[in-house]
Amino acid sequence: MRYTSPLSTLSMTPRIALSSISVIPKLGSRLWNVRASPTILRPIFRFQSTVVAIKMEKVDTTARLSKLRELMKEREVDVYIIPSEDSHASEYIAPADARRAFISGFTGSAGCAVVTHEKAALATDGRYFNQASQQLDSNWILLKQGLLDVPTWQEWSADQAAGGKVVAVDPTLLTSGAAKKLSEKIKKGGGKELAAVEGNLVDIVWGEDRPPQPEEPIIVLGEKFTGKDVKTKLSELRTELKKKKSLGFVVSMLDEIAWLFNLRGNDIPYNPVFFSYAIITADDATLYVNSSKLGAECQSYLEENGVSIKPYKDIFNDASALRESAEARKNGEGGENKKFLISNKASWALKRALGGDGMVEEIRSPIGDSKAVKNETELEGMRQCHIRDGAALIEFFAWLEDQLIVQKATIDEVEAADKLESLRAKQKDFVGLSFPAISSTGPNAAVIHYKPERGSCSVVDPKAVYLCDSGAQYLDGTTDTTRTLHFGEPTDAEIEAYTLVLKGNIALDRAVFPKGTTGFALDSLARQYLWQNGLDYRHGTGHGVGSYLNVHEGPIGIGTRVQYSEVSLSPGNVISDEPGYYEDGSFGIRIENIVMVKEVNTKYKFGDKPYLGFEHVTMVPYCRKLIDSKRLTDAEKEWLNDYHADIWNKTKGYFENDEVTTAWLKRETQSF
Amino acid sequence: MRYTSPLSTLSMTPRIALSSISVIPKLGSRLWNVRASPTILRPIFRFQSTVVAIKMEKVDTTARLSKLRELMKEREVDVYIIPSEDSHASEYIAPADARRAFISGFTGSAGCAVVTHEKAALATDGRYFNQASQQLDSNWILLKQGLLDVPTWQEWSADQAAGGKVVAVDPTLLTSGAAKKLSEKIKKGGGKELAAVEGNLVDIVWGEDRPPQPEEPIIVLGEKFTGKDVKTKLSELRTELKKKKSLGFVVSMLDEIAWLFNLRGNDIPYNPVFFSYAIITADDATLYVNSSKLGAECQSYLEENGVSIKPYKDIFNDASALRESAEARKNGEGGENKKFLISNKASWALKRALGGDGMVEEIRSPIGDSKAVKNETELEGMRQCHIRDGAALIEFFAWLEDQLIVQKATIDEVEAADKLESLRAKQKDFVGLSFPAISSTGPNAAVIHYKPERGSCSVVDPKAVYLCDSGAQYLDGTTDTTRTLHFGEPTDAEIEAYTLVLKGNIALDRAVFPKGTTGFALDSLARQYLWQNGLDYRHGTGHGVGSYLNVHEGPIGIGTRVQYSEVSLSPGNVISDEPGYYEDGSFGIRIENIVMVKEVNTKYKFGDKPYLGFEHVTMVPYCRKLIDSKRLTDAEKEWLNDYHADIWNKTKGYFENDEVTTAWLKRETQSF
Repeated sequence: MRYTSPLSTLSMTPRIALSSISVIPKLGSRLWNVRASPTILRPIFRFQSTVVAIKMEKVDTTARLSKLRELMKEREVDVYIIPSEDSHASEYIAPADARRAFISGFTGSAGCAVVTHEKAALATDGRYFNQASQQLDSNWILLKQGLLDVPTWQEWSADQAAGGKVVAVDPTLLTSGAAKKLSEKIKKGGGKELAAVEGNLVDIVWGEDRPPQPEEPIIVLGEKFTGKDVKTKLSELRTELKKKKSLGFVVSMLDEIAWLFNLRGNDIPYNPVFFSYAIITADDATLYVNSSKLGAECQSYLEENGVSIKPYKDIFNDASALRESAEARKNGEGGENKKFLISNKASWALKRALGGDGMVEEIRSPIGDSKAVKNETELEGMRQCHIRDGAALIEFFAWLEDQLIVQKATIDEVEAADKLESLRAKQKDFVGLSFPAISSTGPNAAVIHYKPERGSCSVVDPKAVYLCDSGAQYLDGTTDTTRTLHFGEPTDAEIEAYTLVLKGNIALDRAVFPKGTTGFALDSLARQYLWQNGLDYRHGTGHGVGSYLNVHEGPIGIGTRVQYSEVSLSPGNVISDEPGYYEDGSFGIRIENIVMVKEVNTKYKFGDKPYLGFEHVTMVPYCRKLIDSKRLTDAEKEWLNDYHADIWNKTKGYFENDEVTTAWLKRETQSF
Repeated sequence: MRYTSPLSTLSMTPRIALSSISVIPKLGSRLWNVRASPTILRPIFRFQSTVVAIKMEKVDTTARLSKLRELMKEREVDVYIIPSEDSHASEYIAPADARRAFISGFTGSAGCAVVTHEKAALATDGRYFNQASQQLDSNWILLKQGLLDVPTWQEWSADQAAGGKVVAVDPTLLTSGAAKKLSEKIKKGGGKELAAVEGNLVDIVWGEDRPPQPEEPIIVLGEKFTGKDVKTKLSELRTELKKKKSLGFVVSMLDEIAWLFNLRGNDIPYNPVFFSYAIITADDATLYVNSSKLGAECQSYLEENGVSIKPYKDIFNDASALRESAEARKNGEGGENKKFLISNKASWALKRALGGDGMVEEIRSPIGDSKAVKNETELEGMRQCHIRDGAALIEFFAWLEDQLIVQKATIDEVEAADKLESLRAKQKDFVGLSFPAISSTGPNAAVIHYKPERGSCSVVDPKAVYLCDSGAQYLDGTTDTTRTLHFGEPTDAEIEAYTLVLKGNIALDRAVFPKGTTGFALDSLARQYLWQNGLDYRHGTGHGVGSYLNVHEGPIGIGTRVQYSEVSLSPGNVISDEPGYYEDGSFGIRIENIVMVKEVNTKYKFGDKPYLGFEHVTMVPYCRKLIDSKRLTDAEKEWLNDYHADIWNKTKGYFENDEVTTAWLKRETQSF
């Protein structure tokens, strides 16, 4: 699944405007959730559900704005900033955190609202210009980010602050790095230092109508799946903290907490996490989570592992108390000069509570680093869940071809995705989807972040390409696969593009590289054949994947983002390999496998350092009729034949009494 | 030619210890020069020269240190730091700037000396552990940088500063960035803020014995060679300065000044530059250079172009005066808030003179950026000088083979390099070498920074590989070529390594990539075939090359250094393509071509952005008998045949009456 950029890095990717939101009765308790950045208001549609359309209508924001301005006046705030993010820098957010959508009426995933006593501005990027124009009422100015001569929201805020005005923000909703930069810009523009206003003003305006905080139950994920118990994880983290001579680590990222304690929740769609914080010191481990989410098993499990439980809301008071005692020690005898560690994605509020620069060091999280290196149990889980997930995809593609070509059925993109979900749901240890499926036909496949909408989506055209990017959560792992197929006669251009993308996908899979090499350095291997022909794709090549956790996971990645030049790939990393090519209005190609970094045997071993390579776990054949085998080298054909033989061997047992699927699989995996 | 790392980035490259220094009577006025970083004391041997050996003996530094400590006492300095660098962050330094070598006795290129009232420490990296042990007398502690449990010289300095001591340095000899980091480390260790002591204390100790500052004449390089007059260059720079709303740019890098004013000098070996500074504002251009170097032509040329001339030493006083008037304007009516720009490689002293952080912004130099994008005249000069330089190399290799195999002559590495130099010197517009030739036989070829020493070097073994990395300065361009040859029967391992290096060299040459791609992203293309076999090389793949300027030139490069991920390649860039493989004690392979970035025609043009590729200008055949053509793809063979045909056509005219060379060239350029 493509990892879209947050607003600050302005993706060039076109995204289809949201015309309606389907709301679906579901097994869970929430109707819908929103994704903070970078996607759109979306239904949760696990299993069977019903639908309510949310039209892309204007909301009259006059009363809301008026109430907000009253509160601003009371607190002596001239300019109030309402970011899209939640307090944990989550990729998806819960409905209760959709403050920017509530105050502005604009429901897109990316954007920032800025309200003064006279004006209100909503900034968003090119993906959302249309949607925002339709959804914003006359109270709002639209700041089209990325256009020449349009100020960024930070610049616009600074302009409004000229003459010593006060700009304020809820400090839980942006990182201290972002706050620092913003404050400098405001001061440069003649405003006062950025003010942190506690208690979110939009929440007060929202009042009773604000959706409740999710309170989904939390489960303990056994060692059978995690491969490492919480005591070991805590002990390894403490070794790290000791090395860094720190006072302790305050954990704010939800997937890091889930991983550290071997717990999984259901508070955020697609991501099996739960709202929480944690403080780990040399002697104590405290989990801040509402105990209503913890059953008896969880409670005793945490107790056995020496983890104290405190209410979620206590984190800031406890952080302040910790700071006070640390400051006392600092000023006392011995003059201890240690700091607290927090993630560089932690909120400004958290840093403030812990005492700011003097007491806090922001780092790339050591938990994130550990989490990205999967152990043998997790790697084996990845292999196993990808075989089951592959079987579901194979059955789905065979079914879809049969429906379209033999049965001449009419199937739309959402119906196809529903079928795929039902096939996945049959598989052992299935929990849910890892993201909403991109099920796209013909020109829709060229929209990288396409999401078909129930009722208004396209019918799958048997004479065009069909691109399916989808994944699921299983107890033993998280999957993410993209295949592009054609059920009719592909054009030469489609075959050429598919083959060039495939060559890049294979080149990256076959790459061998010394330890120390980063995903930034490998990116060009996946693009080289497209580049030779003047083709390219406007997204990264690979993202890290969690183990029954978030489908997008740092710190590793393959692409041109500067952070991918900072962290080298290590054995145990799980990452996607997904080059593509997109021709606007015509067709799109993407091929995505999940691969795992491992040490490989090479003929020589220069420098006595390990040489690394990839093991692919995705088990779904490529589309035979889209491959121009004349453009493949012998080595590529051999690789392809081995891969298809492996898929056949590992999945054929799932279709013993299913002639349609077996025939499809046999045909698609035969040798070149 | 390999670009070696400065001390701070600790190259892993082995470097042969210097056993003697040849001093050579020469046409110029200086006996020898030293290279600050990263190479060794070296003779200048332009044209004909004779040799005097400088033994690698210990110098008794007792008296020097004692005088230095007296001065330190007078100025209330507890710890004095003596870096290797000159005031312009030059890669090579003049003898007058070899302060660290003088005070410590250690003549290696990389290192830093730190002197306290009780102790003296010399820090250097693994390339120099042997040499330093032999050269340092008992006054000195050797800090082996890069070894576990050995402090860096910064850490050692900070340790000495504990208890509020004063650490000082000559602020002209390090960048303000380095000074800031060092000062923080010292303060953390309990010392006072790093002090800038004006007037170099080592120079005072050195006294009369200190070599004079070079005073070589400066020439005007005509538009025939530069392709752009100084008025245009100044006007383009001023547009840039205006865009950045700056007060002006204070230029400190010697090659930037030479380029900007279309002047060339001879103050630093191999680099045709002259000691100078320049200040460019919206209205004025001032060149700080000793007028003794300027003939009448230069003086009137500068005058015509509106450039004022002032003595070199005036720069700091003038910088202070500029600061004062700018500060007055800042504090006056209107409150102008502009800053001076300097290169991020400029000295701490320059930044201080201009007023420090409040008045100065350090940037990647816009002159360096412009200089790296060659114009059509410079590109054509590069093509032409590489044909002439190629002819000299071809004649040399044919001669060497004939001597070794037919004449059964005994020729040592320096004799071979001398012959090559004499052949280059015959070529039109030859000025001198662009660096000392690496002429290395058998196991010496595995020493990446090998430099043969007259008298003590090896005899060229006709049964081993011969690696020759060399280049020259011509009025129309700078060359740098590496070829590895074998005159007998290469081993399978040599053929395998050569062929894998060649495949990487070709892959990079054939690369096509969209505008915006960096050298960091392309590096893996050159290494991929070696990596597949568990092989690699411990140096970068490409460095920028000047136009009759320094053979190593920023800001572009191809490799894993983080700065290469910051600057993308542009049409007009000239860069080396030089993968290698080195087997310690056995053999070394390097293949280096100079390539120029250009826009290329591709079948498609996705994203409406230019697609770029390379044009190779080096005109010397590869070594036929080291190529295993079975490992080449058809596309690689076709590329190779085209290249060799091109070399034949462009150079054969140089050997019309030379049967030996013609036969050699014909044999080496025939088709595969």
